Amino acid sequence: MSLSEFALIERYFRKAGAMRSDVHLGVGDDAALLQSPQGTELVAAVDTLVAGVHFPHGSPPASIGHRVLAVNLSDLAAMGARPAWALLALTLPEIDEAWLEEFTAGFAALARAHDVALVGGDTTSGPLSATIQILGHVPQSTALLRSRGRPGDRVFVSGTPGDAAAGLAIEQSKLATSSDPDGYLRKRFLYPSPRLALGDCLRSYATACIDVSDGLLGDAGKLAHASGCGLQIAFADVPVSEELVSAVGEQRARELALTGGDDYELCFTVPPSEVERLRHNLPPQRWGYCCIGSLSEAPGTVVTNQGSVIEFSHSGYDHFAS
Amino acid sequence: MSLSEFALIERYFRKAGAMRSDVHLGVGDDAALLQSPQGTELVAAVDTLVAGVHFPHGSPPASIGHRVLAVNLSDLAAMGARPAWALLALTLPEIDEAWLEEFTAGFAALARAHDVALVGGDTTSGPLSATIQILGHVPQSTALLRSRGRPGDRVFVSGTPGDAAAGLAIEQSKLATSSDPDGYLRKRFLYPSPRLALGDCLRSYATACIDVSDGLLGDAGKLAHASGCGLQIAFADVPVSEELVSAVGEQRARELALTGGDDYELCFTVPPSEVERLRHNLPPQRWGYCCIGSLSEAPGTVVTNQGSVIEFSHSGYDHFAS
Repeated sequence: MSLSEFALIERYFRKAGAMRSDVHLGVGDDAALLQSPQGTELVAAVDTLVAGVHFPHGSPPASIGHRVLAVNLSDLAAMGARPAWALLALTLPEIDEAWLEEFTAGFAALARAHDVALVGGDTTSGPLSATIQILGHVPQSTALLRSRGRPGDRVFVSGTPGDAAAGLAIEQSKLATSSDPDGYLRKRFLYPSPRLALGDCLRSYATACIDVSDGLLGDAGKLAHASGCGLQIAFADVPVSEELVSAVGEQRARELALTGGDDYELCFTVPPSEVERLRHNLPPQRWGYCCIGSLSEAPGTVVTNQGSVIEFSHSGYDHFAS
Repeated sequence: MSLSEFALIERYFRKAGAMRSDVHLGVGDDAALLQSPQGTELVAAVDTLVAGVHFPHGSPPASIGHRVLAVNLSDLAAMGARPAWALLALTLPEIDEAWLEEFTAGFAALARAHDVALVGGDTTSGPLSATIQILGHVPQSTALLRSRGRPGDRVFVSGTPGDAAAGLAIEQSKLATSSDPDGYLRKRFLYPSPRLALGDCLRSYATACIDVSDGLLGDAGKLAHASGCGLQIAFADVPVSEELVSAVGEQRARELALTGGDDYELCFTVPPSEVERLRHNLPPQRWGYCCIGSLSEAPGTVVTNQGSVIEFSHSGYDHFAS
């Protein structure tokens, strides 16, 4: 890329996030200078999206800009952290101003909604991929970890997992477009909503939390494993959207909710003694979460349906093999 | 990649950096938890290396691991910052344990040398590239910026730029291997040394600083432009290594020193009144820097040689077109 092309991209980057007074120096020098609030820990994560792997080639640029930030914000949500700053490394096969304009718009809308400043970036030429480094804060020693769940804790999930997996299948023409007449499922894949407000509140209730990105069953299993527990899931309690049930039927919908990917919901555990307080202060119908099972002493994952144990493959990739 | 392959990589990542007590939670949860020292600003940068763009396909994996960290550390050096933590996003076409072992060794040696902890990572499958997010600290309001140089300030550069450009040309068989019998020039490309100790000291002397990654002339020009100044360079004062002169002759060596890339040296400015104190406290022969010119009132870059102005193309890519 020529110098002028780099300058062009820098212009896009400069305007792409929220304005924050704790950014002492943003895009344009060798590094950014940032002021963390007192009494907090810094929370840092990194996630990459690669074309053809994490999104189909030809995806809407606004979706790619949105998703690369959303998947990183979801990591902060799972820690109960508040986001502050992002750095973007963007690898592009060519400079396409219309593409960049849309990518930036998708990124910027979500960044501003969550008061995230874009404080640094690197642009390189190569196969399309985007990496975000996200930085945020959590009050000292209050972060939600994966590892603090205890046997007996109730397991909850936010939202309606499975929608995104179906939406991706529709994007990839592995599921008929007529299954998603209003585009709801596709939007759930293209524009996921990181659950930052919920994560922020959960610091007062949850013993453990993880973001659901690789499939609910596998990610809840990781939480259980990190907590030294087993996992019991009630198949009939797994939440599914009406749209997903309409598209694939109820049984398939629950299977997708357990094993699909790209949900960016939160899975969290709450001790039985705290569940009533959680439900009172964060009404489930308003906050959109529900109980799907509990942690057990015995290791391993068990999914039950009407008293019977059912078997699942954890693979999140082959649901709609064409 | 399968879950077990991800687990394999996570094992490599866990052991790949320094141990630091300010890392409250490292690799393995949704995000890292980090404690910044009081009285500092956080310094953050991101840089990506793409195979075939920033390093030749088939480069030694240890070099790639070293360089992706070095180029980021160089950004912190240019701010006068001390590094603390890194996050690595690695995109790999396939899992190759021998490759990962060497990559990690190259990364880890440099990370430990500079007390950098690896606190997070993401591995994805796709065309080979590596992105580092580097985090460090600088005492409050003391960071070195590009923009604070003033007319009359002397311009300095560390090390011997141009070596790396010649080393890359040898790696690419655009320059004969016999030009580099001891592999010195190749090592200067493959294993650059970020000037962190120098940057840390320069906070007490320099008005402005930039890291030299895209060619000394262009990067010094960026510093001058950001400072609202012009740039005057004395061609005969540009430092070159004996090895580079042996390989390409003195004239060509100085041209490469001005327009090559991948040096990761520091270019910095010091007011005339401070030069004596700088030289006394940081002896040039020990610290390896020299004066190559000054900032001017008049904008633009002028390179002079024995009283004559000479013209340069700033392109850093076509020095050894094959």
